[in-house]
Formats: sequence, structure tokens, C-alpha cells
Amino acid sequence: MTPASPRHLLGIEGMDRSTALALLDAADGFFVSNRNPAGKLGTLGTKTVMNLFFEASTRTRTSFELAGKRLGADVVNLGGSSSSTSKGESLRDTVATVDAMRADVIVIRHPASGAPHYVARSTRAAVVNAGDGMHEHPTQALLDAFTIRKRLGRGLEGLVGAICGDLLHSSVARSNTLLLQLLGATVRLAGPRTLLPRDPGALGAPTFDRIEPALEGAHVVMMLRIQRERLGAALLPSLREYSRVFGLSRQKLALARPEAIVLHPGPMNRGVELADDVADAAESAILEQVEAGVAVRMAVLGHCVGKS
Amino acid sequence: MTPASPRHLLGIEGMDRSTALALLDAADGFFVSNRNPAGKLGTLGTKTVMNLFFEASTRTRTSFELAGKRLGADVVNLGGSSSSTSKGESLRDTVATVDAMRADVIVIRHPASGAPHYVARSTRAAVVNAGDGMHEHPTQALLDAFTIRKRLGRGLEGLVGAICGDLLHSSVARSNTLLLQLLGATVRLAGPRTLLPRDPGALGAPTFDRIEPALEGAHVVMMLRIQRERLGAALLPSLREYSRVFGLSRQKLALARPEAIVLHPGPMNRGVELADDVADAAESAILEQVEAGVAVRMAVLGHCVGKS
Amino acid sequence: MTPASPRHLLGIEGMDRSTALALLDAADGFFVSNRNPAGKLGTLGTKTVMNLFFEASTRTRTSFELAGKRLGADVVNLGGSSSSTSKGESLRDTVATVDAMRADVIVIRHPASGAPHYVARSTRAAVVNAGDGMHEHPTQALLDAFTIRKRLGRGLEGLVGAICGDLLHSSVARSNTLLLQLLGATVRLAGPRTLLPRDPGALGAPTFDRIEPALEGAHVVMMLRIQRERLGAALLPSLREYSRVFGLSRQKLALARPEAIVLHPGPMNRGVELADDVADAAESAILEQVEAGVAVRMAVLGHCVGKS
Repeated sequence: MTPASPRHLLGIEGMDRSTALALLDAADGFFVSNRNPAGKLGTLGTKTVMNLFFEASTRTRTSFELAGKRLGADVVNLGGSSSSTSKGESLRDTVATVDAMRADVIVIRHPASGAPHYVARSTRAAVVNAGDGMHEHPTQALLDAFTIRKRLGRGLEGLVGAICGDLLHSSVARSNTLLLQLLGATVRLAGPRTLLPRDPGALGAPTFDRIEPALEGAHVVMMLRIQRERLGAALLPSLREYSRVFGLSRQKLALARPEAIVLHPGPMNRGVELADDVADAAESAILEQVEAGVAVRMAVLGHCVGKS
Repeated sequence: MTPASPRHLLGIEGMDRSTALALLDAADGFFVSNRNPAGKLGTLGTKTVMNLFFEASTRTRTSFELAGKRLGADVVNLGGSSSSTSKGESLRDTVATVDAMRADVIVIRHPASGAPHYVARSTRAAVVNAGDGMHEHPTQALLDAFTIRKRLGRGLEGLVGAICGDLLHSSVARSNTLLLQLLGATVRLAGPRTLLPRDPGALGAPTFDRIEPALEGAHVVMMLRIQRERLGAALLPSLREYSRVFGLSRQKLALARPEAIVLHPGPMNRGVELADDVADAAESAILEQVEAGVAVRMAVLGHCVGKS
Repeated sequence: MTPASPRHLLGIEGMDRSTALALLDAADGFFVSNRNPAGKLGTLGTKTVMNLFFEASTRTRTSFELAGKRLGADVVNLGGSSSSTSKGESLRDTVATVDAMRADVIVIRHPASGAPHYVARSTRAAVVNAGDGMHEHPTQALLDAFTIRKRLGRGLEGLVGAICGDLLHSSVARSNTLLLQLLGATVRLAGPRTLLPRDPGALGAPTFDRIEPALEGAHVVMMLRIQRERLGAALLPSLREYSRVFGLSRQKLALARPEAIVLHPGPMNRGVELADDVADAAESAILEQVEAGVAVRMAVLGHCVGKS
């Protein structure tokens, strides 16, 4: 019943193209059934999904919680300040405990890069990376690809995507760069010099310290969320200055293709990463991303337990 | 399947009598089935209820959570200090996100008067006001009416209700005044002069700065919860003084009708709003209110999704 | 349908042997079905389980939450800083409220010894003690007995159990001593002189202020969790000193029987109560305890509502 070895989703790195496409295709079906449910789905009816969040992320946690519940799973949320981890328990022991409770899927959010990979080595459960520090956020990349495909009505082959903002700290940027390239798009990265990737060549994408050249002719513009705590660390100028130079205005957006769409992983800092009129423009696909998120995570959960 | 336009429950203001009575009648059935469930209800089996609480209110949140679960809905709790709102996201963007996750019903508690109405204009989902600051708390009024009807074994026509306490800040007082009047009762309001409504005439109910005249001959006595934070704001004398003058003792209760019942929205400050022996007296219907609350909210959720 | 009077699980004290064995036998079945579910269980399909936690205990709360959900119950978590109790509501009024919402089972964790017994006197619901201060933690004792039985492949008659650590404050020690004795085992207690039970004779078990004599020839070694807050209270020497004298090393474990197993209620302080190599040794049954916990709590919930 359970597959021989669990099928984790730890990152886009190492994922093959056919797996990515199969997940997007499965999500297509869930996207439709979420809008017009014909009945309660029982796909995960005897399964347990544990949301293990070592960082607050209401949006991602809620999306996974809904995805699990809509598939009929028992979903349990763990984490935050009341968890055993705040009693000094190690990640290893926390995961061993969750595993012993017979979790089928562990969805983990953790500030340390690589934490989900570490966890995957010590559990019978399938592990889904819901964001590990500056490393990967694969379901975000998948939902972004889903949104692009749906909005542009075509595959990603030959598209140009611009990813703009804090590239250094962003798991979203990293996973998206990898997935866009895997699906045949080219990627350009733009951000303040202090926030460019340490090893720009590693991702195989050109980097810019201004956003204009990245935007020119792009089909997809992804704006990254600014973490306000970077300001104190002297990595960022003032928000006003950031917004002026790296924020997306209608004027800058005009450099992209006429049919270009704008993405943001949320929650937005309106007036910082995007001007209000861009956030609410016809080009903005930000709410489609949220809707896609639940469908994609249903596909991922199904995949993890061998039902996809 | 979904009604053409969502059926919100934003307040008692604007509600017609037949809707109010239909909700109370539907709640009658749920009250019975909660006591003796014949089987799991599947009325909301493919629906998603999102509890969006911008203020802590365990009692109300739990009541809605249970109501949703007993109808078979997927229920997700959002809010508190770990939510995106604490990352500076606007109410509008938070609601747009919840909407995009395909919530069918958004139950919202918010400190700002009118927040649910604002939300209702920007979502496909049905919106239920679970308390908006000093404005309305319609499900509380409905459960109070349900309790009165059940306890007195008759409709509300011709009844006299006294609502006592902090009338200025209470959404409970406002919604109850409107609903009691809608259902044919007359209302008297009593409280400290600093806590009377700013525009006493607007509610169409006489106000008193002592509770005795309000109590005389009343069928229903509603005591409001004192928010201790009003003390610091110099709006209240000491708790001891408040209790002596505005608290409900057996002696004061004797002014009401012999069959009068006592209500309180909870949680009670025993010895402040009510004397211990009143809280636990045969006249007290406070626990019936709690039980009615789940049944009424089941009726409301059913109504919102067009299943009532 | 509901039994005439609710079947509480308040403590091991007063439990008869046949009830304990029936619960362990019922848990056997759930242990198997948790590993290989044949389908969704509906045993508690119309029941409501309320987790009322006045102290944080993620592990125990999650275990009960999963147990309820796997039986098909509606499970609601209450407690923590956002609950009504933080608004000054009394335990009695909180419980009356939960009761009025038609909880079928109230699972309560409370710092005050005897709180669950007090609650049981004022509710229609079945009450399960999930730990009441220094008093009892009966489901922990049951899951420990389950683990011993399963791991050693035999009943507990004639076994020798050593319970080591902070015996003074531990509800785990007390419930386990009572249950081990009820099931025919003998118990030895060992801990620092400041942390021995005040009335050592009351439990009918010899006490030692060194762990070596307790370990000699034992079949079961239970290490208790050290609460770091005891350090400030001058009840404990430094952690290093505690570990050296009362921590379980491989060397000390060698005093027990060759087939001896090691238990710990978790979360562990590695290097304090147990050396790392003991925690992870073949003798350690700590993760089996966690797995047993869900099965035992399913048996307890079923028992409480008359389905066992």
C-alpha cells in the first residue's frame, strides 16, 4: 500500500522534468475540483500529515493544512513557541517522535538550510520541504510554474523570467531559478549588489544590480519579499530607496513583454516591492498563485504517499 | 450549487424578521442533533470554513470551529500573533489570500467596527461577523434570542429585556437591542453614565444610569461583560463600586418578573457583573447560551452556503 | 448510546487490574491498525473530544489529537495564552462552557493536582487526565506498560522496574509505580535526596538516593525528565553533577538484566538523564513509547465513550 521507499519533495535540485510536469498536471485536476468539488476526496483518508513549522508562515502552513484536509487526511499542526523544541529537544528527536506517531507525510519549515534533507534520512515518512532558510522552497516554485502555465496558456519552454529582490536570502529565488530552467525557461536575476547570490555563476543565470535589464522582454516578473530585518543588517538602503530603485512600478513593468505577468510569493509589502497599481493590475497573478498553491500541494501530498 | 451571491451574516441591522426566525428554527434542529447525533452530518462536506480571528476569543472561535466540524466542513483557524497580519499585511490582502484558497465561509473577528462589511465587499465567500469592535456581534444576539425562546417557551413578542453594563463599547448590546426589537420585544438599557451609548436615541431604547428601573418587570436580564481595561481609562469606578451599583444581586433581580431569566455572553467576572448566587441560580441561562451558540452557528453556516 | 455515567480516566489509583488489561488489549488492536490502516475508523464519528491544556505539552496534546482524529472524532484544541482562562475565568466556568458545547470527552492537562477529579464532578463528559501537576499521568503509565509488555513479550507479573530521577514532582513516577504494582511488578525508586517522595512508604516501593541499587537486576529502567526550573530552586545540583550521579550510562545500565529495556517519557535532555549511546541503544524503547501512546489513547477514548 505504502510505496517501498517514501517519495520526498526536498527541493527542485535533483528533480527530473517528468516529475515536475506530472505534479503540475495532477494539480490541474485539483485546481478544478477545488472550485467545484463533486464530493469529499478520500485520497488520503487513512493518512496523517504533520505540519512541523519551526518558523511562522501562516500562508504556507494554511495552504498545506487545507491541501491535506481536502484530500481527507488527518492533519496536525506542530511548532511555534509551545512545541517541545522550545524545551531544548533536538530536531532529530522531534522528528523521531513525529515518525513514531506514524506520520505519513512530514511537512517541514525550518530556518536551517538542509534541515528537510537531514530529516528525510531519519524517518519512514515522506518529507516535504516547506522552506528551509536560504535554500529551497520547492512547492512555491511549483505553484509559480503552475500559475505561469495557466495564465499564459502554454508551457514554460522559451520563456524569459526575471527574479528581482533579495536573491541572497531567498529560497524562493533559488527554487524558482532551478525549476524555470528545468522547464526550459531562461532566468535573469536582479537585486542590490549586497543581496546578489554569493556565487552568481552557480545558478547559471545572469545577475544584474539594476532591474531594468532583467525586465526587458521578460514574460514573467517575480518580485521577492523584502525581509525588514535585513535593513538593520546594513544589507539594504532605506525602504524608500529600495522601492525607488528595485520596486516594480508600472513604468518599469512596461519594459517587459506586453503579455508579461507579475508574481510575488506574499505577503506583499505594498509600495516597497511593488507599487499599489502593479499589485492590483491585470498583469498581477498574485492571487492565482495562492489558489494554485493549494492545488499544487494536494498534488505533492498525493505524490508523496504514492497516489498521484 | 453555490448560491448566486453569497449570503453574509454581517449584523442584525438590515436583517428581516423572517430570516431571523428561519435561523432560530434551523438551530432548533441542530440543538437536538447535538445532544443526540444520529450520525455524522455532511451538510458542509465539501466546504471550507476559515476562522479569521484578529482578536483572541476562544469561546466564539471554538463555537464556530465545532459548528463547522459537526457539519462536516474543513475548518482552518487563522489569526493571532503568528499570522501574516503581524508581518504588516493589510486586511484587504489577507482576505484576498483567504478568498483565493477557496474559503466558502470566512468567520471574522476584528477590533474595527465595519471590518466584516469591508471584507464582504471583496470576497466571493460568505462572511460571518463574529464580533467587530463596538459594532455588532450578530450570532451572539441570535443565540441569546434562541435561549430566551427556548427557556421561556414562547416567542419574543411583548417581552421586556434589560441590557445592563458597558453599553458604549458592547457589540453584544447593540446586536441584542436590534434583534429583540425586530422580534417584537422592548429593550431598556442601563449602565454607568460614562458607558451609555453616545447617541441614546439611535437605538430606540430608553437608557438609565441605574439598573433598578431597567429591571422592573423585565422578562430577560442581560448582563454585559466588563472589560477590565476600561478601568485604566477612567470610564469605570473601582470594580467593587461597579459591582455594588451595577452588578446583579438576588435582591436586584427580585425587581424583575418571577419567571425572568439572566443572560451573560461570557466569560463572566463573578462577583462583578453578577453575584455568585445569581450566576448559579435557576434563573441563570448562561450555559444554555453556550449550548445554543453551537446550534445557532451551525444554522448560520448552513444559511451562508445556501443549505438551510 | 452514551453510557449511563461517563467513564473517566482520572488516575491509576483506584483502577482495577481488569480495566488496565482491557485497555492494553484494546490498544494492541489500534497499534496494528495505525501501522496498516484498513480504512478510516468511525468509532467516534459523532463524538467531540476537547483538548483542554492549561500547560503546554505538545507531545501529549498531539498524541491525543491524533488518537481522536484516527477514530473519526471532531477534535478541538483549547488552552494556552489566548484562552478564556487568561481572561480570569475560573476552571469551573471554563469546564461548564466546554460541557455545554456537548463535549463527549474532555482531555485535561493542568498544573494543579486533582484538577481533573474536580472537573469530573461537574461535567457530563468523560474526563481524561493528561497530567495533573505532581499527581498522576495515567495514559503515560498505560503506554509504558504497553511498551514493556510488547517489548519483553510477556505480562508484567514478577518484573522489577526502576524509576529514576525527580520522584518528588513527577506524575509519571507516581502513575507508573501504581500501575506496575497493579500488574504484578515490583518497583524501586531512585533519585537525589531532595527529590525523593515526601512520604516514601506511601507508594509501597523502596527508595534509594543512588541509582545503582535500584538498577541491579531490573527488567525495566524508567528515567524521568529533569525540569530545568528545579535547578534554580536549589533542589538539584548542576546538570553535570546530576548527570554523573543519576544519569544513565551504559556502565550503569549493565547492572540491570541483560534483556532490560530503557524508557523515558520525553522530551529527553540528552546527556543529562541518559547518555547519548543509551538513548539510541537497542535497549531503548523510547520511540516505541511514543507509538504506543497514540494506540493507548485511542483505547482510552473508546473506553470513555463506551466503545471498547
